[in-house]
Amino acid sequence: MKAAVWYDRKDIRVEERNIKTLKDTDVLVKVAWAGICGTDLHEYEFGPIFMPKDTPNEITGEMGPMVLGHEFSGIVEQVGDNVSTLKKGDKVVVNPVYTSGKLPAEIDRYTGLGSLGLHTDGGFAEYAVVSETNVVQIPDSMPLDKAALVEPLAVAAQAVKDGSVKPGDAVAVFGCGPIGLLTIVAAKAAGAKEIYAFDLSDEKLEKAREVGATQILNTKTGDPVSFIKEKYPFGVDATFEAAGVKATFDASIASTRPTGTAVIVAVHAKNLDFNPVVLMLSGVKMSSSLGYEPATFKDTVRILNDANTNVDPIITKRIKLDDVVEEGFETLLSDMTQAKILIQLSGQL
Amino acid sequence: MKAAVWYDRKDIRVEERNIKTLKDTDVLVKVAWAGICGTDLHEYEFGPIFMPKDTPNEITGEMGPMVLGHEFSGIVEQVGDNVSTLKKGDKVVVNPVYTSGKLPAEIDRYTGLGSLGLHTDGGFAEYAVVSETNVVQIPDSMPLDKAALVEPLAVAAQAVKDGSVKPGDAVAVFGCGPIGLLTIVAAKAAGAKEIYAFDLSDEKLEKAREVGATQILNTKTGDPVSFIKEKYPFGVDATFEAAGVKATFDASIASTRPTGTAVIVAVHAKNLDFNPVVLMLSGVKMSSSLGYEPATFKDTVRILNDANTNVDPIITKRIKLDDVVEEGFETLLSDMTQAKILIQLSGQL
Repeated sequence: MKAAVWYDRKDIRVEERNIKTLKDTDVLVKVAWAGICGTDLHEYEFGPIFMPKDTPNEITGEMGPMVLGHEFSGIVEQVGDNVSTLKKGDKVVVNPVYTSGKLPAEIDRYTGLGSLGLHTDGGFAEYAVVSETNVVQIPDSMPLDKAALVEPLAVAAQAVKDGSVKPGDAVAVFGCGPIGLLTIVAAKAAGAKEIYAFDLSDEKLEKAREVGATQILNTKTGDPVSFIKEKYPFGVDATFEAAGVKATFDASIASTRPTGTAVIVAVHAKNLDFNPVVLMLSGVKMSSSLGYEPATFKDTVRILNDANTNVDPIITKRIKLDDVVEEGFETLLSDMTQAKILIQLSGQL
Repeated sequence: MKAAVWYDRKDIRVEERNIKTLKDTDVLVKVAWAGICGTDLHEYEFGPIFMPKDTPNEITGEMGPMVLGHEFSGIVEQVGDNVSTLKKGDKVVVNPVYTSGKLPAEIDRYTGLGSLGLHTDGGFAEYAVVSETNVVQIPDSMPLDKAALVEPLAVAAQAVKDGSVKPGDAVAVFGCGPIGLLTIVAAKAAGAKEIYAFDLSDEKLEKAREVGATQILNTKTGDPVSFIKEKYPFGVDATFEAAGVKATFDASIASTRPTGTAVIVAVHAKNLDFNPVVLMLSGVKMSSSLGYEPATFKDTVRILNDANTNVDPIITKRIKLDDVVEEGFETLLSDMTQAKILIQLSGQL
């Protein structure tokens, strides 16, 4: 089969790979669509970060060169002898997270996890071999390109859950990259009645409005904290920091109401100057989100299938696997208007 | 009456003051015992910080020179015409916090609050005039010196509540000053089964053990994170940072389990270098605590009255009002083994 394999920083090769042998509990998925994640881009530009290049990963026992890709949908092609919940022809998405399975779920989520496409072969390939427990069936009516967004939307849905967003809440999202936009989608699905979105790009803010933001502001032209406090003098119920810089970190805390939650969604590349007294004087709680609980992943299929959910504006480009480096990774590095680029692996939708 | 009045930094004078006129809704409290708080000490050493020296406080409309003292107990001496819940002779403690009363309690707790002894005359005096709603009756059997600890214990009880401590939990307290020690007391009362205490002073650690710590370590001799992880490899359920320096801030996060809470209790004088990714990779939530909800204050009387609660080791000195500067403030600045110094205002216990 054809696959995009990570060898090293700036060295991703599209080449022939053998399909792995199916274990009794495995499912062979014919991949339909796969999304390029910010994490994949980091491995391309700065890697190895998570990719086990020289020593095998603890959970999977594997190391690179590795097939990239952990956001993907497809059709079941074949199932192992002990697989009972799935059959050939089922439309599916894949939860790429492998954990020890020996610890409570909330601990397992943070200790020694492994992921398809980072610690074992992933979905930038015509076929992927996945453990039955990691495959989630989707409704026949759900388009497979849209279904490739279940994984990143699950990250956003978990963040919204970690921010304790309730129906009727007002929230703010700082940064409208793919995760920021999907956080807007997830907040809307959780019942937020007012969703502020901030970015430096008018194009991204327009997308924010299309997917559910009720108030948008380009922070080149105004201060987000004052903008929020015009209507919510004590701040909004929850804020999501999806930009990863000090300005948005500070603004997200400053615009959260007392006992509300500021959720860190972005990876901060740099340390920042911080005084914890800011939390003490404001009463703001700080939370963060990494990955998702298995239940959140499953529930995300429901969110994506809801008629009120619109993720179409987030898909900015569809490419072929052969073009993944130039049309995928290099385009994401050079074109800031891009959000989610999807790779088409097979013709089926 | 005799009172200790804050005029300026390093200028506290014990002098004669008139007793204020009682409004219909006020209670005149004959003060028995009053504790010196870290906040009072900051006003003495570095003030004015909270003290309104040149412009009146928004809530109270008052400014200095002001009678200090917001941790005190006493006996009701006289009540205003409209006071119905209290009568002369009742043993009481005073909740010193005044808020606007016009906002939801959780918002009110953080916006524009005022305090007796900082924004209006307080309890370092023979008598204090207090609004009925701020006076809480205590059992006749509760000694009035011990009762002067209700206020700082309420701060600790709120922190333990903000840290979501449940019966059976394991917790850690970094820093065994008065608030650290009282946090141990409050965590024990909340049912924590294992309480780690860390400090640089063996004397303070011994007090920590006496009031409820189950594990103590002098951090001159060992690493608190490794010490905790010997028994709790994923960290404890909640940590309380009551020292206010970067080393304890980092250690408290590093020793909290995924989805557990690190509560900031100390005021940090300096900014610190921080990467929010630390929270993301660990799954630790960060909370903080300032003051308390009125319900927490009332519940603290119950905690203090419980036979299993021991606060005696926290009271390290008892002094007379005339000696408040030399034996109180100056002693706290020079003698690091001191915890809570109480001023005796009247003979009644």
